[in-house]
Amino acid sequence: MQHQTIVFRNRPRIVAVSSVAGTKESEGVIGRYAETVLSDDMFGESTYEKAECKMLSHVIDGAIKNANLRRADVDMIVSGDLLNQIISASFAARDFSVPFLGVYGACSTMAESLAVAAALVDGGYCRRAVAATGSHFASAERQYRYPLELGTTRPPQSQWTVTGAGASLVAAEGDGVQITSATLGKVVDFGVTDVNNMGAAMAPAAADTILTYFRGTRKEPEEFDLIVTGDLGALGSRLLKDLTWEKGLDLSQNHVDCGEIVYNVVEDEFQGGSGAGCSALVLNSYLHAKMMAGSLKKILFVATGALLSTTSAGQGESIPCIAHAVTLER
Amino acid sequence: MQHQTIVFRNRPRIVAVSSVAGTKESEGVIGRYAETVLSDDMFGESTYEKAECKMLSHVIDGAIKNANLRRADVDMIVSGDLLNQIISASFAARDFSVPFLGVYGACSTMAESLAVAAALVDGGYCRRAVAATGSHFASAERQYRYPLELGTTRPPQSQWTVTGAGASLVAAEGDGVQITSATLGKVVDFGVTDVNNMGAAMAPAAADTILTYFRGTRKEPEEFDLIVTGDLGALGSRLLKDLTWEKGLDLSQNHVDCGEIVYNVVEDEFQGGSGAGCSALVLNSYLHAKMMAGSLKKILFVATGALLSTTSAGQGESIPCIAHAVTLER
Repeated sequence: MQHQTIVFRNRPRIVAVSSVAGTKESEGVIGRYAETVLSDDMFGESTYEKAECKMLSHVIDGAIKNANLRRADVDMIVSGDLLNQIISASFAARDFSVPFLGVYGACSTMAESLAVAAALVDGGYCRRAVAATGSHFASAERQYRYPLELGTTRPPQSQWTVTGAGASLVAAEGDGVQITSATLGKVVDFGVTDVNNMGAAMAPAAADTILTYFRGTRKEPEEFDLIVTGDLGALGSRLLKDLTWEKGLDLSQNHVDCGEIVYNVVEDEFQGGSGAGCSALVLNSYLHAKMMAGSLKKILFVATGALLSTTSAGQGESIPCIAHAVTLER
Repeated sequence: MQHQTIVFRNRPRIVAVSSVAGTKESEGVIGRYAETVLSDDMFGESTYEKAECKMLSHVIDGAIKNANLRRADVDMIVSGDLLNQIISASFAARDFSVPFLGVYGACSTMAESLAVAAALVDGGYCRRAVAATGSHFASAERQYRYPLELGTTRPPQSQWTVTGAGASLVAAEGDGVQITSATLGKVVDFGVTDVNNMGAAMAPAAADTILTYFRGTRKEPEEFDLIVTGDLGALGSRLLKDLTWEKGLDLSQNHVDCGEIVYNVVEDEFQGGSGAGCSALVLNSYLHAKMMAGSLKKILFVATGALLSTTSAGQGESIPCIAHAVTLER
């Protein structure tokens, strides 16, 4: 590791993906790329939390099946989610008789789990690992904010937690998208305390990791077809571009944010999508398809997480954030 | 990885440790080995959660100092805790300008973070990583059970969450305790739904990982000076010995549980200690000291975690559990 970046010698690859999109998430472009599209966000379950867990289990199984493998062929599941004690991931892992590494990085989980899975595969510690995460609008709302039944008015700087999940099957060999490096982020806190403004809180963490990557590796943004952040939303994306511009890095040409592309029209989701499922869904449907088709050859995938809890917010703490990045090449 | 076990080719080592013990935890044998002993469980902070966070920050810094290093010499912090959104670990990591991997394995976190840190160091991805976790009786009680102010009566099968923390500095070279393998656990659920009986819920997970390790590596329990579980408590330990005995593995000679040795006398803690800090404290004080002194040469350290949340318990779910193991040699 140099300058927080691990270069993977053996280029582990994503040999299969799977994704599930909620009803609202299926209305936009993602609906054409997601493997499974829900007609009901309860997914046949009795609670939102069980629906979220089922989505995760569904995409882990989906990635395994899409790689023409069986559960027993997988050495490891690396997963986490937004719920307290990552119950979606833990309960999903119960369905599989496979070693489980629980991770918590809030909405950065897709990049964190991909980085950990890639390191374990690259180092020869396991042949195949599944990296997966997801989120559910309704379970996140009632845990972090208010019960949906209250019908609380949302402030204009808020984002909309994506109902969706995605999984990547990382293997030592095979055809697929190569994971060539991972840049592991530091916890960054600019003192933002507005829990409805995650984009502003997370943008400095994204800027820190992106600047660290480009300075450490002496690469240029132009080498990438896309620099994709996870869920900064419209406001957070603008802040990221400003923060990096101030430091001499121009992301204006090729930066997109999964939170901005996951929804079709800006309506009640205000700044766009958020949640661990946001970048997991977009990466494991739209972006993966574009890479496999050859229209995207190299992307920097940067997922950001806001590491607060309702307790820390209630105790007046600001919001520490983190961003992990992986480079994906085809 | 074979049979869930990773053998570390380069034997990464724990070159320094640090630990902090709460007031109650200092009354027993651990009080003589912990690096820092609290005279007040608030640790000078205004809330239990902030005290827990400070303990974690304190031991991470302690391990770095005990290795004669500075914060900038560390490539990675791997940490997690029991609080929602692992705020203790995330907020502690804010103090360090070091890449952070958040993990969640409930009370298995010390073994999980050690395994991840060891893999990253062994694979050459980082030179030095700190693995750390902790817990606080008062923050755990109010999050998982009842506010302390209620004075709720505890059932006899319950355990007492340890106020304490521990950190291990894992490096590629140097004098210390070698981490020779890691066995990563599967999620195991025997259908226990009593949230006051964690020992019974976690014992099958411990048995599964221990049996997998011994069968997979064809080693015998006699090769180990100790087989140490994290926080099964008195009842859970007995169940573990029964479950492994049924499968032909005799742990009766050299099994101890950190939850049983952390408290001096069985009084209001009933079955003994629990919490992520339980095994972290015992490993990074007592066990490490015994290994460095040569009175323990080889131990199997198995930390177990109960992956429930108050939401899952409220929805009638049983308690999925996990156990990760590392072999430590001197």
